[in-house]
Amino acid sequence: MYEDRIRLARLRDKIMSAHDAATLFKDGMTVGMSGFTRAGDCKAVPLALADRARQEPLKITLMTGASLGNDTDKILVEANAIARRLPFQVDATLRGKINNGDVMFLDQHLSETVEQLRSGQLAPVDIAVIEATAITETGAIVPTTSVGNSASFAILAKQVIIEINLTMPLAMEGLHDIFIPTYRPHRQPIPLISPEQRIGTPFISIDPSKIAAIVITEKADSPSNVLPPDAETNAIAGHLDEFLRHEVKVGRLSASLQPLQSGIGTIANAVLHGLIDSPFRDLKMYSEVLQDSAIELLDSGRVSFASASSITLSKPTYERVLAHINDYKSRLVLRPQEISNHPEVIRRLGLITINTALECDIYGNINSTHVSGTHMMNGIGGSGDFARNAHLSVFVTKSIAKRGAISSIVPMVTHVDHTEHDVDVIVTEHGLADLRGLAPRERARVIIRNCVDPLYQGPLQDYFNEACKRGGHTPHLLEQAFAWHTRYQETGDML
Amino acid sequence: MYEDRIRLARLRDKIMSAHDAATLFKDGMTVGMSGFTRAGDCKAVPLALADRARQEPLKITLMTGASLGNDTDKILVEANAIARRLPFQVDATLRGKINNGDVMFLDQHLSETVEQLRSGQLAPVDIAVIEATAITETGAIVPTTSVGNSASFAILAKQVIIEINLTMPLAMEGLHDIFIPTYRPHRQPIPLISPEQRIGTPFISIDPSKIAAIVITEKADSPSNVLPPDAETNAIAGHLDEFLRHEVKVGRLSASLQPLQSGIGTIANAVLHGLIDSPFRDLKMYSEVLQDSAIELLDSGRVSFASASSITLSKPTYERVLAHINDYKSRLVLRPQEISNHPEVIRRLGLITINTALECDIYGNINSTHVSGTHMMNGIGGSGDFARNAHLSVFVTKSIAKRGAISSIVPMVTHVDHTEHDVDVIVTEHGLADLRGLAPRERARVIIRNCVDPLYQGPLQDYFNEACKRGGHTPHLLEQAFAWHTRYQETGDML
Repeated sequence: MYEDRIRLARLRDKIMSAHDAATLFKDGMTVGMSGFTRAGDCKAVPLALADRARQEPLKITLMTGASLGNDTDKILVEANAIARRLPFQVDATLRGKINNGDVMFLDQHLSETVEQLRSGQLAPVDIAVIEATAITETGAIVPTTSVGNSASFAILAKQVIIEINLTMPLAMEGLHDIFIPTYRPHRQPIPLISPEQRIGTPFISIDPSKIAAIVITEKADSPSNVLPPDAETNAIAGHLDEFLRHEVKVGRLSASLQPLQSGIGTIANAVLHGLIDSPFRDLKMYSEVLQDSAIELLDSGRVSFASASSITLSKPTYERVLAHINDYKSRLVLRPQEISNHPEVIRRLGLITINTALECDIYGNINSTHVSGTHMMNGIGGSGDFARNAHLSVFVTKSIAKRGAISSIVPMVTHVDHTEHDVDVIVTEHGLADLRGLAPRERARVIIRNCVDPLYQGPLQDYFNEACKRGGHTPHLLEQAFAWHTRYQETGDML
Repeated sequence: MYEDRIRLARLRDKIMSAHDAATLFKDGMTVGMSGFTRAGDCKAVPLALADRARQEPLKITLMTGASLGNDTDKILVEANAIARRLPFQVDATLRGKINNGDVMFLDQHLSETVEQLRSGQLAPVDIAVIEATAITETGAIVPTTSVGNSASFAILAKQVIIEINLTMPLAMEGLHDIFIPTYRPHRQPIPLISPEQRIGTPFISIDPSKIAAIVITEKADSPSNVLPPDAETNAIAGHLDEFLRHEVKVGRLSASLQPLQSGIGTIANAVLHGLIDSPFRDLKMYSEVLQDSAIELLDSGRVSFASASSITLSKPTYERVLAHINDYKSRLVLRPQEISNHPEVIRRLGLITINTALECDIYGNINSTHVSGTHMMNGIGGSGDFARNAHLSVFVTKSIAKRGAISSIVPMVTHVDHTEHDVDVIVTEHGLADLRGLAPRERARVIIRNCVDPLYQGPLQDYFNEACKRGGHTPHLLEQAFAWHTRYQETGDML
């Protein structure tokens, strides 16, 4: 049985139930699980782990690529199975536990987790739990819809549990490109010089004797929950499109632009979607996650190649892509997130990066993570990896939230994830602020003029004028800098 | 005359006075000048430019490597000659003009300025003004005590003015390693894999027909004004030394550590000085600027090789190094700041970076630049280039300033240059906080316990406790977050 899925025959003895595999976990262990933006996560073993944790003290440090699907974080945290969690999450229940201090969360740049593991700066991985399409003749692992941190987790872990997911077509083999940087002090350059290049192997090579259990599953990835474009997101896409056309016209960009990265979520998806009718051609993506819009761009021929670490799609698109994975394989590659998000590669390729801001301030500092400066939403994800090293770093947001009770553009952000140094362009439905080459006072004028909702334009201009009277390279009224936020907390409205 | 200094004979016709060379400048021009941390800056042409600006409207955008010496920024700004300035400065008069909004200042990551020039995202350089030791047979430029942005300024400028400084020994030729990244979209990896490697040419190759003027000077660099170590800086050095010994002991670092970067200034100089008596051996430096302490480490043999973009030294050390430059050349290289500070190289080499904080907060966010969150001190410099990509990112500061009226550790920093993601270790004279692998609440406890002055320990703990009652991944009391700063502004004391 499973000859095509487990090609190293002796490993077939390791097939067992998720329940039996879960007996390998011990209280206090560090576990590295596959999964990135709800794609390629394990479906059975985490639930069996939760079952155990409901019956006995069993708390782990859980590392992943990024977010998990299938309510896994919720189920684990409700079973009291998570003591520490890194580097990213999107689950409401887990978020609650993080914000009340019950779960210690390490919000990390997604490129850095395995680097810190490799250098012993994080506790070592006891067990890696990796979803696979197949295991090769040499015991190597063929991943599924994401690579994430799976390769380094499996390489560095003492033991490996593999979930073979029978719903993943065998034709996925060849989709992945696994490259691990050489170790210091003699690390060599990463040889990647274009998005379509393959520099590694199509599987994760490990010592097969580390494979302690193999579990068979048949459950699909959770579908993405991205909303369709609306008037505001279409307007944002339009402003960015116009800006990029202008950059091409004045010769700063070619008609194929530069490789594109887009963060996850509704706005970023809509912005990419807007490129379908653009005049740009032979576009390439070098991103961490591909959403439906990226597949549409590939299907339309507007994008000729896409590199990422994960594909997270709506149900119909997911089914279509898996059914035709052989057709996509020549135009699509999935890499470890260390490589998709690597500063070296991002700077070399010269990406145009498009990420979503939770709030930004009049000088262009960005809060991507903390509601009211205190409460974690999801995590910084790859936005710092990309924005910091981009050729052109774009942040998008709707100008208001809660029907105008919140302005996304504030005097001072309550938490900084991206400093003004790393933000070139800000776009809202009202317009675009091109901040390149501008000093802070100039940035403020452009942002207030172009991006702020009319409701808030006057108050922000007043704040800026008053602050300028006190002077400074970056004028502020410290005693009023967060007055909008505290007013919202007290009255439900920033005004 | 000057056969040894201007080896391409026809260029000797271009020798002229600084006064005559300065007639090339026009109002509104962008000028790129050599100079990095007061080393290798031009001594005569900027003064002649100031002379002209005193007599006629003549305002330029002035780009440099980093700071200039010889009061050049002061003289230019007093002559009303600077409209815009980037990417760094340290001059009190210029700082005043920046903070009152008269001069537009672009505070940039030092690795990025020439990248933005190259891609047309900054206005092009009209004239480059470069200090040189000599001009070669092919018209190439041999720099002096810094490389900074000189190479790209000269390559990208329409015209080049060269100042030949006769006090620079001809033996400086061979000290520099000029490497310019290939252009996108076909950029290749930067081939540097160890600090001592030379990957370019010992001179800046340009079309000699662009050389519009050559001016002869004989003035030395301004000496560095670093203070000697004191009890607090020695204590900081001691804590870091103990930490690094522990890292070696547990096997996370070898006895030669990882290549070291150190920011400029008194504290960083003292910390490096402290390594002279350390057990570490065969240390290497991969830094942006070498101060006296680096030369002491080279002299003592503790450091076997040092790479930087500039050497900025006290007068006696400067004279000794220039007199024996041939001896140092085998252990010292000066590179373009784009390479000394390049994310690709920093991440690959795995640096231990040591930079100075102006203030830090209980969660480990760092303010390097803005006094009271508004007034620019010097600029972010290379600290972001290094901290963001380091193997181990260390920030140092004395725990208090103004005899205790200011705590360098505050509830929330008033300006963020480095987010908590990019800060591994904080050291004050009281102790060291190892923040690796910790969540924000855990970071706060360690910072308050180990680094804060006893005067402020209680108040910070109270703030943190009160904030935790409100919850959040990063607990804060928004309405009190800057109360210490506003109290200091009102009463002259944070308490």
